[in-house]
Amino acid sequence: MTEKPVASTTAAPRKSRKHLPAETEAQLESRDRRRFLRGSAAMAGGAVAAGAAGVAAAQALSIPDSNKSMGKAMPATEYGTPSQFEKHVVRRRTDVFVNRQNWSDWSMTPLQHQPGIITPNGLIFERHHAGTPDIDPAKHRLVIHGMVKQPLMFSMDDLVRYPSVSRFHFHECSGNGLTDWLKPASKTVQQTHGLLSGCLWTGVLLSTLLEEAGVDPAGKWVIFEGADGSAHTRSLPMEKCMDDTMIVYGMNGERLRPENGYPVRAVMPGWEGNVSVKWLRRIKVTDQPAHFRSETARYTDPMPEGKWRQFSMVMECKSVITNPSGGMVIKGPGFHEITGLAWSGAGKVRHVDVSVDGGANWREATLEEPIMDKSLTRFKFGWNWNGGPATLMSRAVDSTGYVQPSVAEIRKVRAIVGFVQHHNAIQPWSVNAKGEVSNVIGQI
Amino acid sequence: MTEKPVASTTAAPRKSRKHLPAETEAQLESRDRRRFLRGSAAMAGGAVAAGAAGVAAAQALSIPDSNKSMGKAMPATEYGTPSQFEKHVVRRRTDVFVNRQNWSDWSMTPLQHQPGIITPNGLIFERHHAGTPDIDPAKHRLVIHGMVKQPLMFSMDDLVRYPSVSRFHFHECSGNGLTDWLKPASKTVQQTHGLLSGCLWTGVLLSTLLEEAGVDPAGKWVIFEGADGSAHTRSLPMEKCMDDTMIVYGMNGERLRPENGYPVRAVMPGWEGNVSVKWLRRIKVTDQPAHFRSETARYTDPMPEGKWRQFSMVMECKSVITNPSGGMVIKGPGFHEITGLAWSGAGKVRHVDVSVDGGANWREATLEEPIMDKSLTRFKFGWNWNGGPATLMSRAVDSTGYVQPSVAEIRKVRAIVGFVQHHNAIQPWSVNAKGEVSNVIGQI
Repeated sequence: MTEKPVASTTAAPRKSRKHLPAETEAQLESRDRRRFLRGSAAMAGGAVAAGAAGVAAAQALSIPDSNKSMGKAMPATEYGTPSQFEKHVVRRRTDVFVNRQNWSDWSMTPLQHQPGIITPNGLIFERHHAGTPDIDPAKHRLVIHGMVKQPLMFSMDDLVRYPSVSRFHFHECSGNGLTDWLKPASKTVQQTHGLLSGCLWTGVLLSTLLEEAGVDPAGKWVIFEGADGSAHTRSLPMEKCMDDTMIVYGMNGERLRPENGYPVRAVMPGWEGNVSVKWLRRIKVTDQPAHFRSETARYTDPMPEGKWRQFSMVMECKSVITNPSGGMVIKGPGFHEITGLAWSGAGKVRHVDVSVDGGANWREATLEEPIMDKSLTRFKFGWNWNGGPATLMSRAVDSTGYVQPSVAEIRKVRAIVGFVQHHNAIQPWSVNAKGEVSNVIGQI
Repeated sequence: MTEKPVASTTAAPRKSRKHLPAETEAQLESRDRRRFLRGSAAMAGGAVAAGAAGVAAAQALSIPDSNKSMGKAMPATEYGTPSQFEKHVVRRRTDVFVNRQNWSDWSMTPLQHQPGIITPNGLIFERHHAGTPDIDPAKHRLVIHGMVKQPLMFSMDDLVRYPSVSRFHFHECSGNGLTDWLKPASKTVQQTHGLLSGCLWTGVLLSTLLEEAGVDPAGKWVIFEGADGSAHTRSLPMEKCMDDTMIVYGMNGERLRPENGYPVRAVMPGWEGNVSVKWLRRIKVTDQPAHFRSETARYTDPMPEGKWRQFSMVMECKSVITNPSGGMVIKGPGFHEITGLAWSGAGKVRHVDVSVDGGANWREATLEEPIMDKSLTRFKFGWNWNGGPATLMSRAVDSTGYVQPSVAEIRKVRAIVGFVQHHNAIQPWSVNAKGEVSNVIGQI
C-alpha cells in the first residue's frame, strides 16, 4: 500500500516564515506551557501573513455556493455515513503479507486519521480465522458448563437482563507490529500499529455469570469457544475471568458489529486480542489449560534459549506517535502538534515522554483526560520544527512503573526470529528536510 | 411511528417463577449492593429452571451451522456497517409533527438501543434548517473578523495544525421533548428525548483562535454563521467563547459527518444545540447580540406574564430512563436493570434518584464512571418487579446543586403554551400488569 499523504491531518501551509520565533528547544523548555501554546498558535495560523486582514474581510463578505441552495433533505429513517470527502479513511488489509484467501486475515485501523481515544465501529481492526459469520441473535445461545454446580444457557434476551457495565478499553492484536522489528517493512502507522482500537464496551461481568453457575473450587481455567468456522478456542485463567472479563454485546453505543463478534463475545481487558473470543457460544470451566493450537503453534514468544513462552497475554505498556507519522509530509517549519496514543494492559498510563532527536533528549508530553484503566490515552506535545532532520519517538510509562522498551532492550530478553508477537517497542519516525516522515524502526 | 418493541433490550423470559426471592423493596434497601446484585443475577438467568443442566450440556455439544462453514471474506478496504439484524436501530424523523418538506426538519437518536454514553456517528440526531450541504474541505474557509486586531482566515489544513482538544460532551436540541409537556403525544424515548446524543468532540478551543486574532476589549458578543442554505446565525456571549467553546472538526474518532457540520462547526458545551453552528464559515466579534430570527422568533421561552425570555441557552440538569421505556414490554416479574442517562449543561451529574412508585419513594441509582463535565452519565438501578403496576421516574442533581424539576414545578415559573423549548422535567413511564411501558407525562 502506498497511502497518499493527507495534508489536512499534518501540514498546514505557512504563508510567512518571517514570524518564526528564534526560540531554541532549551528556551521553550524554560517557558510555561500556556505561553508556549499562545506563541505557537500565532505561528500556526494560515492567515497571519501581511495583507491577510483584507483577504479575511473579503472572504467574510463572499457568499459560498452552499449558502445559496438547499442541502440534502432528511430521509424518514437513516443510519448515517461519512462524507464523500473522507473515502480514504478506511480500514485496510495488510499488504506486507498478502494472503491468497481472505478468510484468515486482518484489517488495520487508520490511526493517523483518528483523533481522541475512540475508534469508530466502522474502522475497528479485524482479525478472523475463518471469515465473519452472520449469526441470528434470536437463535444464538451461550452456555456455561464444565466444573460448575449448575450449567447455564443464555439467550441474548437473557444476557441483556443482567446488571450491565460499560467500560473504555483498548483492544490490540498480539501480532501488532510483527512485520517491523529489526527493519522497516511498513510505511504508515496504520500498517505498523493499526491492529489497535479503542472502544466503549458494554456487557455483563463474567464474574456475575460464573457466580450464578457456581464454580467448583478446583476449576482454575476457563475455555472459551467461538461459533465461527474456525471454532476459535482459548484457555484463560480463572483469576482473570473473575476480575474484569466482560461478556460483551455492545460497542460504542450500539450492538457489536458482525466482524467484532455479533451477537456476543468475550473481552479480556488489556490482554492480547485473540483471547477475547468472538461469536462466543461456550464457556467451560476446567482444572487446566487445553493447550489449543492458538496456545502452542501460535501466539507464543520465542525466547533466547530456544524455548517458547506460552500464555504471555498481557499487552505491555506501549505508545506511538500518530501525527506526524510514516507517509505524511510536514509542509513547513514552525509549530506542529505531535500527538499519539499510549496504553497498557497492566493499568493506566502514567506518563509519556517524547523525543524529537532520536532519543538523545526526552520531554514530558501532556496526557488528555480521561485517563482510564487499560484504555487508550491521548498524548500531545507542542513542537517547533526548525526545518532540519529530526527523529520523533514516544515512550510510555504505566501505573506499575513499567517503561516502554526499545527493540534493543527487548532483544536482550527475547529472541526476535520469525513472526514475533508482542512488539511494544518504541517506534521512531524520521523527518527529513523536505518534511517527509518515514519509518526507521531498527535503524537508529 | 409505532415502534415495534424490541424484546432483547428489555425483557428476558423467565423460565421459572418459583425461584423468585420473597424480598420486599425495604429488605432490598437494607442489603448491600454487592449482595443485591448477586441475588438479582440468580433471578435473571434464563437457564436456571429445573432440567436446565441437561439442556445446557446438550447445547454445548450441539455444533451450530456457523461453525461448519467459512464466513464472509475480508475486503481489501472497508468502512464497516451494522449487522443485518440491527436494521431497526436507526435515527428517525419525528412523526408527531409531519413536515411537508424535509429540509427544515429533525431526526432523533434511538436512545432505547444505546448502551453507555456515546452515540455512534450514524445515529446522532440531526436538526437542519435547509438540509445538509456537502462542502469540500479543501475549498472551505473559516474567517474571524469584526472587533479584532487582526482578522484571520483558516483553511482546514490551518485549523488542524493548532493545539487540539478532545472532550466528551452531550449535545441536546432545545426543542427536545417539546411535544410532550402536559400530556403524552409520543410513545418512545426516541420520540420524547431523542434530540440528544453523546460525543467525543475534537477541535481547537475558540479561545486559542480569538487570542491570536486579538479581541477588542469592547467586543462582548460573537456572531457565528453557517455555510448552509439557511445561513444559520447565532450571537453568543464572549465569556462562553473564551471558556470552553470548541471549533470542532472531529467526532468520535473521525471527521465530522456532513449532517453534523462537516468540515467544521462550533460546539458550545452544555448549551442548546442550535448555538453550536454547523458548517461554520464566519465568526464576527461585536459589542452586542444581533437578535437574529433564532434569538427572537425562535428558541425563546414564554413566561407567565406574557413576556418571552431570550438567550436561555444552558441546557439545565435532566435525566431519563431509557430501559425500560415507552413502547417496550417487560416480559416477566423478577430482576430488571433500570438504566438511563443524566446530564447537565451546568457541570457534572452529582447523583440520580429513581422512583418505581410514581415519586412516592426515591432511591439513589449507581452512576457509572467516567462522570465528566457536561457529558452524558449512565445511571443504573436494580429493580425487582413484583408484576404489578408501577411508575418509573428518574431525577438528577448536578454539581451546582440544581435538582431536575417536575412539569408542575416548571409551570410555576414559566408559561407552557405552544411549542415550548427547554423541557427538562422528570419523565414518568407507566408499567401495567402485562409489562407494557407507556408515556404518562402530565398524567400523575
